Amino acid sequence: MYWLRRKLRKINWSLIANLNGYVLICLGLLMLLPTICSLIYHEQVVYDFLITIAICLIVGFALSRIKRSQRDFFARDGMIAVGLCWITASLFGGLPYFISQEIPSFIDCFFEAVSGFTTTGSSIVPDVTKLSQGILFWRSFTHWIGGMGILVFIQAFMPKANERSMHIIRAESPGPVIGKLVPRIQQTAALLYKMYMGLTILCILFLLAGGMPLFDTLCYTFGTAGTGGFSISPLGVGEYNNLYYEIVITVFMLLFGVNFNLYYFLLIKQFKQVFKSEELRTYIFVVASSMILIALNISNMYGGFFEGLRYSSFQVATIISTTGYSTTDFNLWPMFSKSILLILMVLGACAGSTAGGIKVSRFVIILKKIKLDIQRLIHPQKVQAITMDGKIVDESTVQAIMTFFGCFILILFGCIILVSLDNLDFETTISSVFTCIGNVGPGFGLAGPLGSFAMFSGFSKFVLSVAMLIGRLEIYPILIFLFPLFKVPDAIKPKKFHKDNE
Amino acid sequence: MYWLRRKLRKINWSLIANLNGYVLICLGLLMLLPTICSLIYHEQVVYDFLITIAICLIVGFALSRIKRSQRDFFARDGMIAVGLCWITASLFGGLPYFISQEIPSFIDCFFEAVSGFTTTGSSIVPDVTKLSQGILFWRSFTHWIGGMGILVFIQAFMPKANERSMHIIRAESPGPVIGKLVPRIQQTAALLYKMYMGLTILCILFLLAGGMPLFDTLCYTFGTAGTGGFSISPLGVGEYNNLYYEIVITVFMLLFGVNFNLYYFLLIKQFKQVFKSEELRTYIFVVASSMILIALNISNMYGGFFEGLRYSSFQVATIISTTGYSTTDFNLWPMFSKSILLILMVLGACAGSTAGGIKVSRFVIILKKIKLDIQRLIHPQKVQAITMDGKIVDESTVQAIMTFFGCFILILFGCIILVSLDNLDFETTISSVFTCIGNVGPGFGLAGPLGSFAMFSGFSKFVLSVAMLIGRLEIYPILIFLFPLFKVPDAIKPKKFHKDNE
Repeated sequence: MYWLRRKLRKINWSLIANLNGYVLICLGLLMLLPTICSLIYHEQVVYDFLITIAICLIVGFALSRIKRSQRDFFARDGMIAVGLCWITASLFGGLPYFISQEIPSFIDCFFEAVSGFTTTGSSIVPDVTKLSQGILFWRSFTHWIGGMGILVFIQAFMPKANERSMHIIRAESPGPVIGKLVPRIQQTAALLYKMYMGLTILCILFLLAGGMPLFDTLCYTFGTAGTGGFSISPLGVGEYNNLYYEIVITVFMLLFGVNFNLYYFLLIKQFKQVFKSEELRTYIFVVASSMILIALNISNMYGGFFEGLRYSSFQVATIISTTGYSTTDFNLWPMFSKSILLILMVLGACAGSTAGGIKVSRFVIILKKIKLDIQRLIHPQKVQAITMDGKIVDESTVQAIMTFFGCFILILFGCIILVSLDNLDFETTISSVFTCIGNVGPGFGLAGPLGSFAMFSGFSKFVLSVAMLIGRLEIYPILIFLFPLFKVPDAIKPKKFHKDNE
Repeated sequence: MYWLRRKLRKINWSLIANLNGYVLICLGLLMLLPTICSLIYHEQVVYDFLITIAICLIVGFALSRIKRSQRDFFARDGMIAVGLCWITASLFGGLPYFISQEIPSFIDCFFEAVSGFTTTGSSIVPDVTKLSQGILFWRSFTHWIGGMGILVFIQAFMPKANERSMHIIRAESPGPVIGKLVPRIQQTAALLYKMYMGLTILCILFLLAGGMPLFDTLCYTFGTAGTGGFSISPLGVGEYNNLYYEIVITVFMLLFGVNFNLYYFLLIKQFKQVFKSEELRTYIFVVASSMILIALNISNMYGGFFEGLRYSSFQVATIISTTGYSTTDFNLWPMFSKSILLILMVLGACAGSTAGGIKVSRFVIILKKIKLDIQRLIHPQKVQAITMDGKIVDESTVQAIMTFFGCFILILFGCIILVSLDNLDFETTISSVFTCIGNVGPGFGLAGPLGSFAMFSGFSKFVLSVAMLIGRLEIYPILIFLFPLFKVPDAIKPKKFHKDNE
């Protein structure tokens, strides 16, 4: 086991512990909001929140005081830090559910917290009406926290952020390439959060203007902004049967699924950059065509194309943005609509947004790579490269995306095998894995919009929690944990290299 | 449309027409076997075979006489030739079903012929007992023809085969890298067919030794050798309830799933090469672990682990070798067993065998590529490469495999969307696409081992036929047909290239 110890010793554990400490302090402070909420509603749960806050602050403070080594901080350390911070946040973020005993089993609390922070919105609560307002508020608020990333938040507001923070932001932010908007990383993080808050406030104002109660507005906005999807009533947004709310939420879900860099370009009036974005154009194309195809497919269920379009638009927006709200039981839709939704679940929206999934930009590059390889078969002599938004995409980026996709699919199949041990039906098993790894929320069958994830075994809930984390953090920060466990051979002996080149 | 015409004019059509002609002549001659069979059984269908033979020979002879241009024959031409030949073979190979009206609809005949030649074994015949012996024989015999490839057959026995035949063999043979066994390509093809025939005869002898009737022996051996899976009775191999038959067929299905190069190494006594094969070791590992896991999972259904192992062994062998026989209704098995089988369907067996699917060697390289990329995240400074059987795998081969996998998965999802238009249940829709693209045969749900593909619409049958061809020919020979339809832009303007390098 010497090699394992030597390997583990190389990691900058003290800095990782510090970061976990900051996350917990941050979490404790953020928990003041649901505490205030339950104070207003005179709920018992306020004490449970206070206990959790105390625990978070004490443990967080202790971890943040650990003396930092002067060691370098590598990309790998950034990965491990982000992976661990998210697990820590989920463990402590689930404490209010557990201490209040509104969710009695610990694995259920962990699942619910992971589902919240990863902005999935799959719930093990069979009847949300039994939860207190404070807990409902916290559940939805975890979406908002997880949406832009808790570590990006810390980087944005911590005074000592520096260039090495890039490793952390890169590991936490979704998408194949993370561009720095402005030269200083702290400003980039702050800018992202300002835009995030701005859009959130806009969404709140629009919903309030339509007459939605404040509590509902906040909860649904948190879910919309983080593209989460926890609902505060069994029927979700469908409960109101209000076209205005549906339109506002549809539009904002789609907006939160757009790369935030584009909003920055809008702010600095570089409109050309926005129009040039191939990802945005593909996103709009996929959204529009899915909406129309599904509307045609379900029109006879809802008496006409336009009524069908109302439901299909909302559902397509909520699934591709990986939010997971519902206005109708889409589990009853025909198979064609369901199979489109199934694929949108893992496709996800744009890189650099709060949505999960593979991301449209990766999908575009995969398609271009396939096209390129077929062209090479036809014209092997032509020098070609893949372009995106008019710029050539690095060969290494393309390769990384192909590996990411392969890895994603293999993990998807692996999770299906593990979850299938519960012996639930084919549809429930497969769709629940798709929806969790894509950070969407509801699946089909028993895990449909009117169902819950309560019937899964503890083991499956754990597997699905890991799947949600893998989906949100884009595989590697979670997978890298398994790697110190395998002995990595020292690559290739130089001898063989020479032999092959001779 | 000028560019399209210019593009199409560059293809060596005359040689492709010649090849199609040879295929048809060959097919006509091979059809003499089922004709003899129906003569022996005094069946009316003998005239239908004779008509088909006449059509094949006339059209084939006409095509083979087309004057050949002296143009070069490129990899692309090889792809198009192979794709077209398989479509031609399926169209004419389905004629006996149509002329005899034992299968009344033309799309059904085409489906059944494609299913035969691609060694899938999915059938649209709800009750095979109603088919004549001649037709049953022909159905199974198409598996044997398609197993090693009809063009490889022509290359093996055509006098004028030369080096350009490599393009054809490469396009028709399964697996990422096709090694020439011996310097001359014609000898390689002949060697492959000799080994194929040798193993086939062995299988026939073993089954006859157990007392299986000659007709049944031939039909089941053709299916086993080609890893096809058409059955001659509703219950398939389970009808006999004979452990000896099951063991013989299990062993031979697994043997036909092994890379034929390894048999050549055995023949020339290079045993080391066989033991070194990582693909073989992974194949054995996957087979053994799947058998044991499923046996444990179903043991309570069959009263004990060993009885369970009997059924799981047969089923795992038949699915991973993409044969598709059955001894029991595995549709009733628990979800865990079914999800393992579902993944084995698209995994397939070894490259260079008669099996379909992604192939174990590609799977191994994908896993190694993922591992390598994670290692690069951990130790970016280390120079590393992927090795297979102790040799370094070309970077371009690895990339081609990643693209193949991405393409395979996207086509899989695309077919699911198209087939879902039939509005059958989730399980039937998804598993039928998996089983067709993997060239297995039966799926789950309505397409299970006791069901058939009769309930699909004509459109879905066409989509599934294309999926089978894509699976058997490993995507590109079929996909390349779509490409002249798209205008391929002239890659990148050199200007931008420079800009990026500055």
